[in-house]
Amino acid sequence: MDLFQRLKTDARPEWSAYVSHEFVEQLGAGSLPEGCFRHYLVQDYLFLIQFARAYALGVYKSPTIDDMRASLEGVKAILDTELDLHIELCAGWGMTRPMIEAAEEDRPTMAYTRFVLETGMAGDLLDLQVALAPCIIGYAEIGADLKKRHTAKIAGNPYRRWIEEYAGDLYQELAREFGIWMDKSAKIYLTESRYPRLATIFRKASILEADFWQMGLDAEATQR
Amino acid sequence: MDLFQRLKTDARPEWSAYVSHEFVEQLGAGSLPEGCFRHYLVQDYLFLIQFARAYALGVYKSPTIDDMRASLEGVKAILDTELDLHIELCAGWGMTRPMIEAAEEDRPTMAYTRFVLETGMAGDLLDLQVALAPCIIGYAEIGADLKKRHTAKIAGNPYRRWIEEYAGDLYQELAREFGIWMDKSAKIYLTESRYPRLATIFRKASILEADFWQMGLDAEATQR
Amino acid sequence: MDLFQRLKTDARPEWSAYVSHEFVEQLGAGSLPEGCFRHYLVQDYLFLIQFARAYALGVYKSPTIDDMRASLEGVKAILDTELDLHIELCAGWGMTRPMIEAAEEDRPTMAYTRFVLETGMAGDLLDLQVALAPCIIGYAEIGADLKKRHTAKIAGNPYRRWIEEYAGDLYQELAREFGIWMDKSAKIYLTESRYPRLATIFRKASILEADFWQMGLDAEATQR
Amino acid sequence: MDLFQRLKTDARPEWSAYVSHEFVEQLGAGSLPEGCFRHYLVQDYLFLIQFARAYALGVYKSPTIDDMRASLEGVKAILDTELDLHIELCAGWGMTRPMIEAAEEDRPTMAYTRFVLETGMAGDLLDLQVALAPCIIGYAEIGADLKKRHTAKIAGNPYRRWIEEYAGDLYQELAREFGIWMDKSAKIYLTESRYPRLATIFRKASILEADFWQMGLDAEATQR
Repeated sequence: MDLFQRLKTDARPEWSAYVSHEFVEQLGAGSLPEGCFRHYLVQDYLFLIQFARAYALGVYKSPTIDDMRASLEGVKAILDTELDLHIELCAGWGMTRPMIEAAEEDRPTMAYTRFVLETGMAGDLLDLQVALAPCIIGYAEIGADLKKRHTAKIAGNPYRRWIEEYAGDLYQELAREFGIWMDKSAKIYLTESRYPRLATIFRKASILEADFWQMGLDAEATQR
Repeated sequence: MDLFQRLKTDARPEWSAYVSHEFVEQLGAGSLPEGCFRHYLVQDYLFLIQFARAYALGVYKSPTIDDMRASLEGVKAILDTELDLHIELCAGWGMTRPMIEAAEEDRPTMAYTRFVLETGMAGDLLDLQVALAPCIIGYAEIGADLKKRHTAKIAGNPYRRWIEEYAGDLYQELAREFGIWMDKSAKIYLTESRYPRLATIFRKASILEADFWQMGLDAEATQR
Repeated sequence: MDLFQRLKTDARPEWSAYVSHEFVEQLGAGSLPEGCFRHYLVQDYLFLIQFARAYALGVYKSPTIDDMRASLEGVKAILDTELDLHIELCAGWGMTRPMIEAAEEDRPTMAYTRFVLETGMAGDLLDLQVALAPCIIGYAEIGADLKKRHTAKIAGNPYRRWIEEYAGDLYQELAREFGIWMDKSAKIYLTESRYPRLATIFRKASILEADFWQMGLDAEATQR
Repeated sequence: MDLFQRLKTDARPEWSAYVSHEFVEQLGAGSLPEGCFRHYLVQDYLFLIQFARAYALGVYKSPTIDDMRASLEGVKAILDTELDLHIELCAGWGMTRPMIEAAEEDRPTMAYTRFVLETGMAGDLLDLQVALAPCIIGYAEIGADLKKRHTAKIAGNPYRRWIEEYAGDLYQELAREFGIWMDKSAKIYLTESRYPRLATIFRKASILEADFWQMGLDAEATQR
């Protein structure tokens, strides 16, 4: 069993609460109120900026050139591609770049991103990878699952593009490679006596990811 | 006007929401449900541990020996004194050390502490000081204000000890010195074009502090 | 006067000792013993790895997306291009990739790179930029100066490729842009009372750069 | 065998070059030129300031409260006691506080201290401990060894105070406790595949410590 599977197994309730969150269910069913998705999208943009910083921290923290390059891919993906794609995606939902850039980080956005960054800074590359994993691998799991379960009605789902992006080969492969990279670090840095500390990081990160969905769901009432 | 006053003035709504939070009002009136206070106390213990790390980061970040020593006082206060006092205070509310040490950080505890630590790591000593200020100076303001407003009935207030600790000369002086120390950094590192970034840090930290009170208030329903 | 010119002017002796180092003079004249250059090349490879980490730290430390992108260019330049070019350059001098990768960092390599990284971590982006400047802009100045002074005999100079790389438009532009980027940070973060601290960083970094040349010069005796 | 013994055994030549350095030998024999010792003393003061930062980083990096407290002892020892003792010791050699505080860090001082700080920041607490060990435990070994070998003539040795400080029970105990603390981290974080990376840190730190002695020895020629 790879490290991710083990961590997931040991954080069963928190992991379920995250990947099967009501926001996710409604997204898959196409019934999520648009205002929820819009709020999520904008916060996800701000989230990505912090995640680029986290990957950059990974480059700094890397003990080998291979690790540096693996982490650099994450920074490049976000700063060179994803942020612009995100702006474009937002445009499809009627939000302009100035609107998005003027937005302020909501609490769950700050909570998860700063937790990841600080965990990585205080610890080593493996700590950082474990803090990033719920997001990176979790989104692949959610995307693939939604695609499979809702494939019949996906054509009419307003969130189809989102689902297909994370269910797509490109993202699935990226997540798979992240898992392999984390296992490489684990091979060198993981001990049984250290494992409980990593499990705590993973569990907390999963909780904070679930809060991020909840923020989207709560947005309907407050923002529209 | 010193930097703290300026930051507070520019974050008026967030500051009010924090220092006049319903949790604070009920604490002052002695009407706060005990379960709320207990939850707060335990989380505050976990909070203090992270704050000791933040002060230690301040020692690391200090450009002068004087700055190092000022920051060291904060680490010593927490690790040498406050943590034990806190355990003792908790004992008065029926909570034992093992109970407290087994507790897990709640979301608002993680959110505020990691924000402070990460802001300080990414920036310089002044960024760190501004992120710490809402807590350090805010508690002095809250303590003094509650003491003044509720002085007639303080004898019967179950939270008297808490109020008098923060209203007391020792803490008031500590907070005053923190403000002076922050102004010293500002004298060297503050520019007008940088100020808005510091104002954002201060505002976010104030929001996250208010969330910490809210966590206490919400505890009643969930935990008792 | 931009920040770089000011810093250079205030570190006149250290700057001269660096840019007009005997190693540089002999490189320009083509009289540098090959062993010196070989030792320098290998150490410069190890140096670049640390510099990629420093640029990645710059991404982490960046207060804006523009800063993040500017810093990312540095990481990409090294990890995606320069390291391989360096291996190729070394091959022309009879050194294979395994030889280079097995080499151990010499003292001056450690001294300068860790100084840059640690200065950047302890301070803000501007501190990091100032610590990087002697290398980034200094190499452009040295390259351009050597090209101009030795242009008549450059065809026969065994170190022609090195000189032309740093004298070339690509590198000159990169250094110019770095200076502009540093000035952007200075506009926001520089105060007169802070300036002496930046001047000290710049001066120390220049000294440590000169030591890097000296290491090359000393290599002849010890390594051949 | 504890981790320190293992690291020392695997860095035999670098360790010998450090603990049996000519500076150490002359110090023990009382034949070290005064100018060498004076230069060393002043640099050691500047070194201690950086070491206090390294211990503070240790507090920040600590995964447990016990680790935080162990590391805090190091910060307190330096900032509350050792720096003043050092000034006093310097006074006995005719150097005033202003002279010492105006002194600038020499290269070997920067090289070792920044290496320690940066290693600790990039890695975890164990990396930091291993980088600190050659100094902390090495001085105990050197002090005890000099005391034993030169006990007959120690009364007339001008460096007697230095030797007896590090040979004394207080320092010996401090070093012993540091070793125990490092072993505690190793029990949780050490793996065989990670060990070579720690060995490299230890070896480099030992080299940089030897350079610190050499700086003292070289001072005679340049400074008197």
